[in-house]
Amino acid sequence: MPPDARFDARSQKRARKLEAAHAIAKGKFLAPDAVTPLLEAVIAPTDTVIIEGDNQKQADFLAKCLLGVDPAKVHHLHMCQSSIILPEHLDLFERGIASRIDFAYAGPQGERLFRMLADKKLVIGDIHTYVELYTRYFADLLPDVCLLVAEKADKAGNVYTGFSTEETPALIEATAFKGGIVVVQVNEVVDALTRVDIPADWVDFIVQSPRPFYIEPLFTKDPGQMTELQVLMAMMALRAIYAKYLPRTVNHGVGFNTAAIELLFPTYGLELGLKGKACTHWALNPHPTMIPAVESGFVETIYPVGGEVGMEAYVNSKPDIFPIGFDGTMRSNRFFSQMCGHYAADMFIGSTLQIDIQGNSSTVTSGRLVGYGGAPNFGCDARGRRYASPAWLAAGKEAYAGAPMPRGRKLVVQIVETYHGRMQPTFVEKLDAWEFAQQGFFANPPVMIYGDDVSHIVTEEGVANLLLCRTPQEREQAIRGVAGYTPVGLARDRAMVDALRERGAVAWPEDLGIKESQASRDLLAAKSIKDLVDWSGGLYDPPSRFRNW
Amino acid sequence: MPPDARFDARSQKRARKLEAAHAIAKGKFLAPDAVTPLLEAVIAPTDTVIIEGDNQKQADFLAKCLLGVDPAKVHHLHMCQSSIILPEHLDLFERGIASRIDFAYAGPQGERLFRMLADKKLVIGDIHTYVELYTRYFADLLPDVCLLVAEKADKAGNVYTGFSTEETPALIEATAFKGGIVVVQVNEVVDALTRVDIPADWVDFIVQSPRPFYIEPLFTKDPGQMTELQVLMAMMALRAIYAKYLPRTVNHGVGFNTAAIELLFPTYGLELGLKGKACTHWALNPHPTMIPAVESGFVETIYPVGGEVGMEAYVNSKPDIFPIGFDGTMRSNRFFSQMCGHYAADMFIGSTLQIDIQGNSSTVTSGRLVGYGGAPNFGCDARGRRYASPAWLAAGKEAYAGAPMPRGRKLVVQIVETYHGRMQPTFVEKLDAWEFAQQGFFANPPVMIYGDDVSHIVTEEGVANLLLCRTPQEREQAIRGVAGYTPVGLARDRAMVDALRERGAVAWPEDLGIKESQASRDLLAAKSIKDLVDWSGGLYDPPSRFRNW
Repeated sequence: MPPDARFDARSQKRARKLEAAHAIAKGKFLAPDAVTPLLEAVIAPTDTVIIEGDNQKQADFLAKCLLGVDPAKVHHLHMCQSSIILPEHLDLFERGIASRIDFAYAGPQGERLFRMLADKKLVIGDIHTYVELYTRYFADLLPDVCLLVAEKADKAGNVYTGFSTEETPALIEATAFKGGIVVVQVNEVVDALTRVDIPADWVDFIVQSPRPFYIEPLFTKDPGQMTELQVLMAMMALRAIYAKYLPRTVNHGVGFNTAAIELLFPTYGLELGLKGKACTHWALNPHPTMIPAVESGFVETIYPVGGEVGMEAYVNSKPDIFPIGFDGTMRSNRFFSQMCGHYAADMFIGSTLQIDIQGNSSTVTSGRLVGYGGAPNFGCDARGRRYASPAWLAAGKEAYAGAPMPRGRKLVVQIVETYHGRMQPTFVEKLDAWEFAQQGFFANPPVMIYGDDVSHIVTEEGVANLLLCRTPQEREQAIRGVAGYTPVGLARDRAMVDALRERGAVAWPEDLGIKESQASRDLLAAKSIKDLVDWSGGLYDPPSRFRNW
Repeated sequence: MPPDARFDARSQKRARKLEAAHAIAKGKFLAPDAVTPLLEAVIAPTDTVIIEGDNQKQADFLAKCLLGVDPAKVHHLHMCQSSIILPEHLDLFERGIASRIDFAYAGPQGERLFRMLADKKLVIGDIHTYVELYTRYFADLLPDVCLLVAEKADKAGNVYTGFSTEETPALIEATAFKGGIVVVQVNEVVDALTRVDIPADWVDFIVQSPRPFYIEPLFTKDPGQMTELQVLMAMMALRAIYAKYLPRTVNHGVGFNTAAIELLFPTYGLELGLKGKACTHWALNPHPTMIPAVESGFVETIYPVGGEVGMEAYVNSKPDIFPIGFDGTMRSNRFFSQMCGHYAADMFIGSTLQIDIQGNSSTVTSGRLVGYGGAPNFGCDARGRRYASPAWLAAGKEAYAGAPMPRGRKLVVQIVETYHGRMQPTFVEKLDAWEFAQQGFFANPPVMIYGDDVSHIVTEEGVANLLLCRTPQEREQAIRGVAGYTPVGLARDRAMVDALRERGAVAWPEDLGIKESQASRDLLAAKSIKDLVDWSGGLYDPPSRFRNW
């Protein structure tokens, strides 16, 4: 059936671009120095362009090539990308190549992004959570060109995304089935792949990049840097939440607080009887700090959002735990794992930079736009979930006590020290995020996790159980009750906090039977990266910057 | 890296099964009569087995073959399947082959399923929404064997899932990367595919089925059967909700009520000024009743959960609207489109069988277990969403008026007649779903959409806006206020309902400036299936049962 000309603008545009590209590339494969000319041929002004790159792997060579185009030819691009990580991502706006961006996470570029926004050097469509952004690529942010990154291609153009597949499948499907142009940088072109992840006919152009793609070992946390305060918080979380609700499928955020919990499974977790009863299934990257728990038999499966540098051999040797293909190597999948954390998981636990007195939290602090990443998707009550697990039912019983219709609920836990950085209080009366709304940058204050979605807050002072709070006043006092010596904590109503402690809505270490003196680094199943390597039987191969032995 | 024997039980099991299979199948391709012996070789007792089949396409031949296995060899299977549609799906339990099931939707088998549950002939793990069930396949319901359905395979074993791709990508990824066995039935084996959807190395066995797979034209609603009551309700929905909030990305449920709305876009919708302002983007199957809206320029994109029988040529001719591959044919994707409806959409609107006085709804009625399908995922507030659209902000302003932190909100609309079937009241004081919990079949009453998530209820009596209700009492009276002559409606507090009408929380037709006499079938842009064919320029080819001219 030939297309109807009234409804065929996108594939006509594609055909014109491919014709222009034909002068530069005869087949699918490009020389590295042909990429910039190709991009000038296939990208039109105001096009919507995806550059692949989340908090881990980056299509860094293609980003560099895009920065090389002539702004007289290619300009006013609408960039769509999970993450703003590389300097090139923002240089595009300085050079007048791009003007608008929709994204999820800005990590290391957060300060520069804020300055450029304030200086009107770019327009932000909005900040998203990863999967939300991907779904818009299928609906209203249709990609004209998609710049992807993969490990290998074969000479027919089939692609192997492998261990760090991450977001590639979602991005390519949105582009290849909407008349977009797909360009892939690969580390290597081989005669034959041992596994095909993307069929050749979904791909337009492939280039072998001069260097392997950049990838961040984001989830590698050195046990040597964990403090006894973190051990104390981990003990409280394990005692007050893990051992109470016995969550079955769990997601941990990135950070030292949750990494400390991971290292306590084989010690304090064993003592609490968690083995085989809690945290058997995970939506999680292959955290090196999970190795002792895996080796000690706490873990049945881990379904990963991405890979983790140095964990390849360890992961690939454990097909019962990780998703391994017939070829013997893992394939991660960001979309599926994010949704696993959303729908299959009983609990999310992660950190943040600011929490207000209603429990709203944000990493968007003054002068810095970090974005959300996966947190809003993991860290919200999944109201479309229907299957019952003991943890989900128990949390729902507390949350909906007295409501006419019983309902389950996800555990959404924030774990923070009351002060962070240079003695910045984590607890605040009002989030810095309000400034961004007041200055007109966003319609509402950019909140990462809303207080309504949070079930517990863990600090070194104690654990607030917001599910047991019946009024906004009680929630506020429960939060103040664990906010320690911050101004928010000092302003607490002592009588109300005492009453909340009686009910278990606030638990201080002594209420949980935990003495601060117990919180020793000796409880960490590994005290160094070297210990993790030993636990792994030598299979874990940490990046050199983590090797200090 | 060779696998670690302590963590390699699944691939060892796979290897043993493949060895046993070698006596039956020498290569990837099977004769139809070899399938049952193969299944006896590759399925072990208590295995977790997926049969593909949602509310549209069915792996019907493989389901029949599974029913043929010897229950002495293959028994106590844990079936995981989106839908229980075919008699064979339940026959498996009668014959002692399977004993436990996790699913999302049971449509036509709902009554038999209930009887078998009551007679203890099967155990239900739980009822899910589709994507929730898929995520569990990656976490804790690991498939040992997956029986899939596709259109074509080439002789190398690559597979084309095409127009009705639906859930195949999610199911195969969960299986192929967890040591499971993948068996695919295809309609046709060809020398070369025009597009590869699944690479050959993800597939273990392929059989050409004796007949093409069964597929249900679920979303084909004959305009000839639409009533003036449905036209009235559609007008009220368009006036009170679509024209007020201007939702940009939308999902419609299955049913005549929403199909009537679709047919009103080119008439009443045009009059209300919706063209280009609302409903430009859709997460939706290719509904034939959308043809007039597409042809009239109301629609920019439709991203489909599945295909629709007879819509192939029409859809494939509109690459701007639908996701079309380089080969010129569509690829639907249930996971991505469901999530598009969850995260990208401003509004869901659909029907149900029972609504209680808190707005909770269920299709699980006495003696019948229909399940949820996609409704809980579409029909809940997506609390992980962060991007702002005008509709989402406007709904949030109403919902969170006076709250300390502003937040957006999805519009979740239920559209029902006050009585359905044989004068069964749709509105009830208490859902039948309670019986299922009380009898111990489920931990909580199986609710399809929770009242907390619902923003509006539309009936022939009026529109209740629950976002404007500030107390449970107000919500209850707003619901009673549109419940008409049902006992729930008759028990309303007239003074409270009047006060709610003043505030716009209840709107009767006259409050919306709609006269019942206006609600004529003449407003339907198509009055018959034949009209839809005409609108399509002859490209829509309805199934024969819908052809009456």
